[in-house]
Amino acid sequence: MKFRMKSAPMGWNSYDYYDTTVNEQQIRANAEYMSEHLKDIGWEYIVVDIQWYAKHPGSMREKYQYIPFGEMEMDTFGRLQPDVERFPSSAGGKGFGPLADYVHGLGFKFGIHIMRGIPRKAAHEHMQISGSSMTADMVADPASICGWNPDMYGIRKGVSGGQAYYDSIIGMYAEWGVDFIKCDDICNTNLYVDNPYSASHEVEMIQRAIEKSGRDIVLSLSPGPALIEKAWHYEKYANMWRITDDFWDNWELLKNMFDRCELWQNHVAEGSYPDCDMLPIGRLGKGFDEERNTNFTREEQLTMLTLWCVFGSPLMIGGELTKLDEWTLSILKRKEILKLISNAYVGRQVEKNEKYAVWSCWKEQPKERYLALFNLEDVSQEITCDLHEVEQFAEWEIPKSLHAEELWRGEGMIVHGGALTASVPGHGVKLFLLQ
Amino acid sequence: MKFRMKSAPMGWNSYDYYDTTVNEQQIRANAEYMSEHLKDIGWEYIVVDIQWYAKHPGSMREKYQYIPFGEMEMDTFGRLQPDVERFPSSAGGKGFGPLADYVHGLGFKFGIHIMRGIPRKAAHEHMQISGSSMTADMVADPASICGWNPDMYGIRKGVSGGQAYYDSIIGMYAEWGVDFIKCDDICNTNLYVDNPYSASHEVEMIQRAIEKSGRDIVLSLSPGPALIEKAWHYEKYANMWRITDDFWDNWELLKNMFDRCELWQNHVAEGSYPDCDMLPIGRLGKGFDEERNTNFTREEQLTMLTLWCVFGSPLMIGGELTKLDEWTLSILKRKEILKLISNAYVGRQVEKNEKYAVWSCWKEQPKERYLALFNLEDVSQEITCDLHEVEQFAEWEIPKSLHAEELWRGEGMIVHGGALTASVPGHGVKLFLLQ
Amino acid sequence: MKFRMKSAPMGWNSYDYYDTTVNEQQIRANAEYMSEHLKDIGWEYIVVDIQWYAKHPGSMREKYQYIPFGEMEMDTFGRLQPDVERFPSSAGGKGFGPLADYVHGLGFKFGIHIMRGIPRKAAHEHMQISGSSMTADMVADPASICGWNPDMYGIRKGVSGGQAYYDSIIGMYAEWGVDFIKCDDICNTNLYVDNPYSASHEVEMIQRAIEKSGRDIVLSLSPGPALIEKAWHYEKYANMWRITDDFWDNWELLKNMFDRCELWQNHVAEGSYPDCDMLPIGRLGKGFDEERNTNFTREEQLTMLTLWCVFGSPLMIGGELTKLDEWTLSILKRKEILKLISNAYVGRQVEKNEKYAVWSCWKEQPKERYLALFNLEDVSQEITCDLHEVEQFAEWEIPKSLHAEELWRGEGMIVHGGALTASVPGHGVKLFLLQ
Amino acid sequence: MKFRMKSAPMGWNSYDYYDTTVNEQQIRANAEYMSEHLKDIGWEYIVVDIQWYAKHPGSMREKYQYIPFGEMEMDTFGRLQPDVERFPSSAGGKGFGPLADYVHGLGFKFGIHIMRGIPRKAAHEHMQISGSSMTADMVADPASICGWNPDMYGIRKGVSGGQAYYDSIIGMYAEWGVDFIKCDDICNTNLYVDNPYSASHEVEMIQRAIEKSGRDIVLSLSPGPALIEKAWHYEKYANMWRITDDFWDNWELLKNMFDRCELWQNHVAEGSYPDCDMLPIGRLGKGFDEERNTNFTREEQLTMLTLWCVFGSPLMIGGELTKLDEWTLSILKRKEILKLISNAYVGRQVEKNEKYAVWSCWKEQPKERYLALFNLEDVSQEITCDLHEVEQFAEWEIPKSLHAEELWRGEGMIVHGGALTASVPGHGVKLFLLQ
Repeated sequence: MKFRMKSAPMGWNSYDYYDTTVNEQQIRANAEYMSEHLKDIGWEYIVVDIQWYAKHPGSMREKYQYIPFGEMEMDTFGRLQPDVERFPSSAGGKGFGPLADYVHGLGFKFGIHIMRGIPRKAAHEHMQISGSSMTADMVADPASICGWNPDMYGIRKGVSGGQAYYDSIIGMYAEWGVDFIKCDDICNTNLYVDNPYSASHEVEMIQRAIEKSGRDIVLSLSPGPALIEKAWHYEKYANMWRITDDFWDNWELLKNMFDRCELWQNHVAEGSYPDCDMLPIGRLGKGFDEERNTNFTREEQLTMLTLWCVFGSPLMIGGELTKLDEWTLSILKRKEILKLISNAYVGRQVEKNEKYAVWSCWKEQPKERYLALFNLEDVSQEITCDLHEVEQFAEWEIPKSLHAEELWRGEGMIVHGGALTASVPGHGVKLFLLQ
Repeated sequence: MKFRMKSAPMGWNSYDYYDTTVNEQQIRANAEYMSEHLKDIGWEYIVVDIQWYAKHPGSMREKYQYIPFGEMEMDTFGRLQPDVERFPSSAGGKGFGPLADYVHGLGFKFGIHIMRGIPRKAAHEHMQISGSSMTADMVADPASICGWNPDMYGIRKGVSGGQAYYDSIIGMYAEWGVDFIKCDDICNTNLYVDNPYSASHEVEMIQRAIEKSGRDIVLSLSPGPALIEKAWHYEKYANMWRITDDFWDNWELLKNMFDRCELWQNHVAEGSYPDCDMLPIGRLGKGFDEERNTNFTREEQLTMLTLWCVFGSPLMIGGELTKLDEWTLSILKRKEILKLISNAYVGRQVEKNEKYAVWSCWKEQPKERYLALFNLEDVSQEITCDLHEVEQFAEWEIPKSLHAEELWRGEGMIVHGGALTASVPGHGVKLFLLQ
Repeated sequence: MKFRMKSAPMGWNSYDYYDTTVNEQQIRANAEYMSEHLKDIGWEYIVVDIQWYAKHPGSMREKYQYIPFGEMEMDTFGRLQPDVERFPSSAGGKGFGPLADYVHGLGFKFGIHIMRGIPRKAAHEHMQISGSSMTADMVADPASICGWNPDMYGIRKGVSGGQAYYDSIIGMYAEWGVDFIKCDDICNTNLYVDNPYSASHEVEMIQRAIEKSGRDIVLSLSPGPALIEKAWHYEKYANMWRITDDFWDNWELLKNMFDRCELWQNHVAEGSYPDCDMLPIGRLGKGFDEERNTNFTREEQLTMLTLWCVFGSPLMIGGELTKLDEWTLSILKRKEILKLISNAYVGRQVEKNEKYAVWSCWKEQPKERYLALFNLEDVSQEITCDLHEVEQFAEWEIPKSLHAEELWRGEGMIVHGGALTASVPGHGVKLFLLQ
Repeated sequence: MKFRMKSAPMGWNSYDYYDTTVNEQQIRANAEYMSEHLKDIGWEYIVVDIQWYAKHPGSMREKYQYIPFGEMEMDTFGRLQPDVERFPSSAGGKGFGPLADYVHGLGFKFGIHIMRGIPRKAAHEHMQISGSSMTADMVADPASICGWNPDMYGIRKGVSGGQAYYDSIIGMYAEWGVDFIKCDDICNTNLYVDNPYSASHEVEMIQRAIEKSGRDIVLSLSPGPALIEKAWHYEKYANMWRITDDFWDNWELLKNMFDRCELWQNHVAEGSYPDCDMLPIGRLGKGFDEERNTNFTREEQLTMLTLWCVFGSPLMIGGELTKLDEWTLSILKRKEILKLISNAYVGRQVEKNEKYAVWSCWKEQPKERYLALFNLEDVSQEITCDLHEVEQFAEWEIPKSLHAEELWRGEGMIVHGGALTASVPGHGVKLFLLQ
């Protein structure tokens, strides 16, 4: 049985700032910052994203995000290792062990990104698979590639050496102390337009390898959009799955997330967290040669955080922590809001139309009720919610009058007659605790 | 707020046996049979299906199911009335009132089928809308038709007379004593390939009209397949919605229902029941000029009933009740199995592959646990379920040994080691109560 | 066998200026203008476009282009007649006879627009079909409608009364003296996304009725885009078919026409003319309540005329003739360019890329060679054509040096070395006669 | 300018019998047979099909058609060479030169099959490109693969070394004496569902390399179905392109070819031959481990040959020549029928419906007229063709009476009244010369 976390994971991920280029010192610096400024709020995971095994990543940035046929660190069994130049503590075959230990020492959990499959190089060189009599060419599927990254071949279905390969890498990660695996090119293998969940058997193999490893490892699947017809499979074999393609600091993408949360709201459960992707806030884009502050306005950032929380998405900070400004840091510390991502709270969309969206979020024991009014238009508008519509979802009898406190701004009001009305800024949100 | 029934509806529907031709006497006979043989099990609704307003329905059967530009009973406000030849108690403008009274008198509820929209004839003749200054041509949309039935035009969005029209018909139905409305050509308006939920505004108008009527009326939407992307809308505005196109006594259709139940399992809730369609059992097809016994084998019928129950679908008997054979009657009386459709039980698919499917179904207070093993192949096979896989769904700690009773056959066994194995006939099911 | 015209038709059509509102006096005025200013160049057809049978067309313009369930002039056989208010000469059942006579008297040909099918009103009222024992409800298909016009039902396939109906209307048109029928909602019945050529049997019925009528009538099919997979059927049963959806004075639409001409270039033949639609030039849009001069620049207009000519499309002027400005009139008189639409000339695309397109056009006896360089970009550019590439299409040996005369501007030059280079304005064209 | 052959190529291809396994001796034996039995009829090309460079092809037949990551003969510039074990005359770097010489010596032309792109192995090993300073990894596109063959990567667009690579292989083929290149995975790169002509730039590069080579080489593109929207591009840069996916001895595939010929009939021209694929007749399938006689009946074979001829497709015999039976050999010698593929004849479909198809084929100088009646049903039927329908295509005035000779069977008859009727066997054809 897969690992069942009581809440969606919260943490930091290196991608939005570093792309392929992050190194050990940077990882440590972010972990330390999290330890100093963001402890006891729920932030917990430190995740090293894509191509930690690549030599000179980013050196051909003007042409390629991922250098084709480039050099990579690999052991004799075709298992990728951290690039020792960037991750010196991995020298001597220690992999991410020392770095994981350091992160654990701060009280946090350690995660890594992987591409599904086996290195193409290992297949072309017929390398031995650890713990198997088979070689890489026997398990690699030359017709199964990633459309945007040139490193791997997918693993064939039903070949014994394939499970052995996954056992060999996941076992190694478990030994290193990895707590979180973000596996890419697997949730939606978008090159295969007619069969976008073409690697479902690899999801099963990876989950089986995790269970064999004996370690509680979160399995996170990328990229999206996940396929709603496969919801059952994600729920059985994974802990998180991306519900959109890569999310960035762009209002259209944020607006579109309301459609996706609407679609996936019935699928949030213990150990199962549809994933709205990283929070592109603070300082972003250095590894992409486009370093900048987030393009999101403050209102948009509150909208994003609120939606992710009432829906129940994982929260992974994308911005570089050591460069966080005061305001951004302050919203990441709002524990009384962030706690809504816990599985103890249920979130449901009450209404969505061209102009606005309304979500309800509640807990049964002890009773708590929240209402979020999101303005999807560019300018401020008054949004009214008939609270009787909320009853249907939250099994909640509306009292004649109640108190509503807007949490982001700390303003309270009395609501009479069963309808709450508020003026909400363009692209913004008001989040009420109702009592 | 829509009506929230605690369980999916159970009852009888005239379509599978009578097609368009059913009359008052036949409706009464089926209601009486239900009263005599199927009381106190949960069977409750008596539903008059399509074209009760048509004159001489079925008289051009060799060419058309629905006679184009045929005669129909209509009042001066363009509201369709029961064909007085077939429903004599409706004479004098009493509509279905007397028949509903009769059904209520037996302790049952009364339902009718409608096509969305307003009669084409009313639009071409510019008839007045009751309670409105507008005429039918002003609210009818000439570009919104049903692809398979020639009677109606859809109602335009945002025209005041449109809501008035729906208020006028639903108000009339409420006065008649209608408890259940099966609205057709609305769940999936399949003619409009690029916009199959083109009548979503009509769903809203009908639900609003129901709430205005003040009567608890179940709103059932047809035909399917419902669109999973619109799940939220169905859940907000309707009580039932068809998850496949018309279901008949054909194994391929039954097998396919496993895919659909997999897809919709997270959407069963109080007042919200994804609908697997009528049960085509017993005597069928007279109105279609192809009277016959069901083509389903007994094993297939048990499979169907079990799936509908563990999933939580409404149960509507399609066969003519007065002609039920002993065996079919006997399975419709298995209250200890049929009770699983209640909202108190949660059903989840545990596994599905090419060969078989496994569903778990459970209740928390007091604890009950069921496991259904479905054989999707043509011949008998042994199916094994690792009960630990069930834990994930049912939050259930598996004891070292437990008792499993197969409910359809009444056979018990002891299960050791956390895995239940049973031999299941081709297309058949075994349903275990685990204790 | 269908009518085989030696050249694509040239003429004037009422739609772009009048929409549904044109009347007899306006038709006469345009015919008279054509007679006075555009004779002997090839302009020949005067076409009355959509809804000449409707009462008060355009009177609900703010809501509808076509009034739903509106009044129309019809005879007792369900055959639509000219609205006698707008076409007074049609009084007494004379239809378009007198107007056709007038147009013929000027030396021109007379055309009308029709919607495929039979009036919905005729079907709902079970009207008699002329020359048949059947009534309209027996031949009308209630599931076959036009998605954008509410007037008609399609005709069923294989019902004898259906051919009788088409014979009855086409026979009447032939008696009136109609030379050209533009039948709409038939080339692409776009409501039926999965079967957009759903009315192919009606094309056959109409062509058969034309042949029975004994009159040489051009059959023009609308709207586009025509389906390339059905090219053979259009070629067999029609004379013209639209290769795009409605064309208006918009650069993106004009640019897109290069893709469509590329696709259809092999299908221009005697009697078969893929149709690029009307020329929206001069004064446009009055009937749409948006009267204006064309939005096309002069360069764009030359591009359009040149493409239509070298490709071999019909040429129908859309603008109101009586309001033509000098410059527009002057380009419509360039007989030495317009003659290229004749079937004696073959046109072929030589090259097309993101930036420009090149077409070759030639005649064998006596030899004539033309080359058109089209600039698809917004700003002026030099375009070079390697004349050897033209050889492949035109079977033409390139001389060492040749004379190139740009026809629109009347400028000549000598080309050496087998490559012609010219500076072409943004969105513009240079058309060379090579000698 | 591309090579313009006056007729579609005729010849023999190794694939249908040998799959990947053919060797030099077998090629010679087939060429010799063609020389002895099929000379002076038009048969001319001898084509070595797929994977002539592979070691031990077919040795893992039970698992793979093409061994993944298998050994192949390659020179130091990443250019594939014939497997010297199978093609001993290629030893010492002579490639296919000696074999081509042998074939030329028999009076025939020599062709080879290639996969588009550069060997994956060359890219992973960063091999030098002949005549360029670039290496294979710089021109290979790791995201461009063939979905069914594991050997190659596509070439990037706009990288100078890419053209150099194609120049280097095509130049080598020209030196060998290659007359015909069948390039695979290029006409329809079907893995890329949203962009199936993704390698159009490689078609251009290959044609450019052919022109640079100075040799008249036929360029044949596979596999199909070719995209009708790209017809213009195929016509400009290639000589043949497949209009269906792989064709085999199966009636459904043959029946479907009528749809494809209907679609492509306007695209047959000098140097441009839409390709119906090899003729799977005689002895087939040895290399696939399923050696057999063709599954086509004799009637079907005549249907196939007639359609290919009147349409104007290339004719490539797929069966092993040395094992041809008498009857099959006899139909391949019917020069008076096979000549119809010449460009001097124009073929057009006259009619096609569910039951039968009619094609007309004619020549102007001197006049010849043919009519083919194809029975698409399983049993014999009478087919009638109104000869006036043919007039439209063939510009032919039908005489009052004419003589019709059925060519396959040598039977004559007199046709009166402009309509020819014949009884045609199921799946069969009658081909008439009309005089």
